[in-house]
Amino acid sequence: MIKFEEAIKITEKEAIRLDAEKVDLSVANGRVLAGDVYADADMPPFNKSAMDGFACRRADLDNVLEVVETIKAGDVPLKTIGKNQCAKIMTGGKVPGGADCVIMIEQTVAVDGNRIRFTGSKTEDNIALQAEDIRSGQVVAAAGTLLRAQHIAILASAGWVHPLVYRRPSVAVLTTGDEIVEPDVRPEGTCIRNSNGPQLIAQVEDMCAEPRYLGIVPDTPEGTFAAIGHALEDNDVVLITGGVSRGDFDFVPSVLEKHGVRLLFSQVAVKPGRPTVFGLKDRHFVFGLPGNPVSSFIIFELMVKPFLYRLMGHVYRPFKVRLPMGTDYSRKKADRIAWSPVFINENAEVIPAEYHGSAHIHSLCGAHGLMDMPVGVYNYKKGDLVNVRQL
Amino acid sequence: MIKFEEAIKITEKEAIRLDAEKVDLSVANGRVLAGDVYADADMPPFNKSAMDGFACRRADLDNVLEVVETIKAGDVPLKTIGKNQCAKIMTGGKVPGGADCVIMIEQTVAVDGNRIRFTGSKTEDNIALQAEDIRSGQVVAAAGTLLRAQHIAILASAGWVHPLVYRRPSVAVLTTGDEIVEPDVRPEGTCIRNSNGPQLIAQVEDMCAEPRYLGIVPDTPEGTFAAIGHALEDNDVVLITGGVSRGDFDFVPSVLEKHGVRLLFSQVAVKPGRPTVFGLKDRHFVFGLPGNPVSSFIIFELMVKPFLYRLMGHVYRPFKVRLPMGTDYSRKKADRIAWSPVFINENAEVIPAEYHGSAHIHSLCGAHGLMDMPVGVYNYKKGDLVNVRQL
Repeated sequence: MIKFEEAIKITEKEAIRLDAEKVDLSVANGRVLAGDVYADADMPPFNKSAMDGFACRRADLDNVLEVVETIKAGDVPLKTIGKNQCAKIMTGGKVPGGADCVIMIEQTVAVDGNRIRFTGSKTEDNIALQAEDIRSGQVVAAAGTLLRAQHIAILASAGWVHPLVYRRPSVAVLTTGDEIVEPDVRPEGTCIRNSNGPQLIAQVEDMCAEPRYLGIVPDTPEGTFAAIGHALEDNDVVLITGGVSRGDFDFVPSVLEKHGVRLLFSQVAVKPGRPTVFGLKDRHFVFGLPGNPVSSFIIFELMVKPFLYRLMGHVYRPFKVRLPMGTDYSRKKADRIAWSPVFINENAEVIPAEYHGSAHIHSLCGAHGLMDMPVGVYNYKKGDLVNVRQL
Repeated sequence: MIKFEEAIKITEKEAIRLDAEKVDLSVANGRVLAGDVYADADMPPFNKSAMDGFACRRADLDNVLEVVETIKAGDVPLKTIGKNQCAKIMTGGKVPGGADCVIMIEQTVAVDGNRIRFTGSKTEDNIALQAEDIRSGQVVAAAGTLLRAQHIAILASAGWVHPLVYRRPSVAVLTTGDEIVEPDVRPEGTCIRNSNGPQLIAQVEDMCAEPRYLGIVPDTPEGTFAAIGHALEDNDVVLITGGVSRGDFDFVPSVLEKHGVRLLFSQVAVKPGRPTVFGLKDRHFVFGLPGNPVSSFIIFELMVKPFLYRLMGHVYRPFKVRLPMGTDYSRKKADRIAWSPVFINENAEVIPAEYHGSAHIHSLCGAHGLMDMPVGVYNYKKGDLVNVRQL
């Protein structure tokens, strides 16, 4: 059994970035940049009015000002502002030469048809200076960036309409167990429905990788061998749930070895998720995940998701906070790091979710995050600061 | 100008839930349940072994035990466990009658071909009791739940393969401004590229609503009138950026009124985002958003997203935490609530992002959240607790 942190390091070390491909900006949301993106112009590209108002010389603020032209966004100013002159200007408009400030329209009155007066006592410049946000040629989004809406805006404004991004990994999802039936079947006797498969598919989808559901694998060495062989052939990553413990019908580790998969670990000091298996063959990777849906969910979050992001060229940094416990919490054994679903209450305190064990999928619903409890720690007292990783 | 909190309440009050539709579970991730989901069986459906081991009577732990059968997950036990008997059992297997605990396989040794002995000093029961997680008939996911991977697992295990969910709102996205060119065009002179459109589309997509991009609207009353008319006809919600300030070429509010759109507000005491407009006509809703991409992004997050979720039947509760400032922070005016992009540093302190104003889209990239600064508050000191809403 290896330490959890060591297991994470092993997976990270093996993650080799996939190839890159150019995609249309309209489908780049959620993908990871494979090259830096540069600005092809200053932003703003010129001194730009931050207000609707009048561009003028600060020295003339006490005087009646003649309006020499109107400049809206997109217009090129035709005049230079001289003494006691101004130009009516709209937000985003280019500030004309000679002007050093823009007075807000609300702080002016019309004196006659073509002249105005400043009614305020003082004013900001209200000018966004050329290149104050970004200089032409500057990197505006670096390789490895996971593109979200705000980055899409950056790429759009840089004209980067066919960004180079890493390929989406194809991720096969298999479930083992003769007792498992698909969700549309009413389970008889001691059977239960497949919840891991649909859950993993949703988790893979959410990170913009490409799930491929390969069904329920029969609990025989031959059936498991055939299913894993097929999955390995066509996919970057294989996720297989169940069959990884030490039961008589847990064929996954031995079948993987028969396929020439090099197993790098098969027991991890983490709760839930001890029987997690990781191996590779050429550039194909396999995670054997616990059959219980809470374990499978949590190990995906903690280990598979960062791994898949590495394949996509991104170093995943989940949102983590340190918050006080809202209640006492203890456990009987402390030989593994534990991760438990928790809520954050109104006072920003951490409350462990009701949690009957790793099959209790209900406990994840509505939980805000996962709290860790390191090896050797048996108790948290109310008020102790703990780590919460957002779900 | 109305208070920000009041503006939010107005939008919430008008949001009427859309119709519901049945969808396949495979495409339900990200949708909102329109009806409760019930369990059709206890979970676990029977007393289930939580370990690979031997099911036996606790009273016999000191004795050599005869193995009467092997039970894997999915098997129906054939025997009842009597005195000094046990059944080999796999994780998930049904615990046979007579047994009151499962001893872990690691805490046993074989005595001979068919008998084993417990080598531990004590044991947990290692039995997940029937219905301890969920009782048959219990609501396992309530109407209004935003379905994420963990809920998909719940629905799958309940056999709820065609959940009733609210329809995805269709959201038209329009950009105004003669100075705006599409991202694939190299802007000449004083023009700039459209970043709001692609950004809003990504924001709408991310919440599983249906964006429809309708292009750049010319800065004329006629052009604006035609574009908004077309957008209103076919869509639940219209988002239009720019044209909402008080400039001479800001036609959006007046054109909306010409279309019979009832404007409920057109100035909000929020920074950025003062010129935000909200109106409705029958069951069609319009948000006029500021033309600056940071303002547009933030107002979408704070106001449009919760509104769209309401249409989808979901009460959106963003992940919020209260954290100490890592630095002093001040502002000159405090007549509006301010929302600023912030980072969380290694010490879980809040650091405002470098932020040149509402056109500085770069400042959002990599920010962890938005910090609020209420009306009347001019300063935060290092160590003050502030609200951070995760991005």
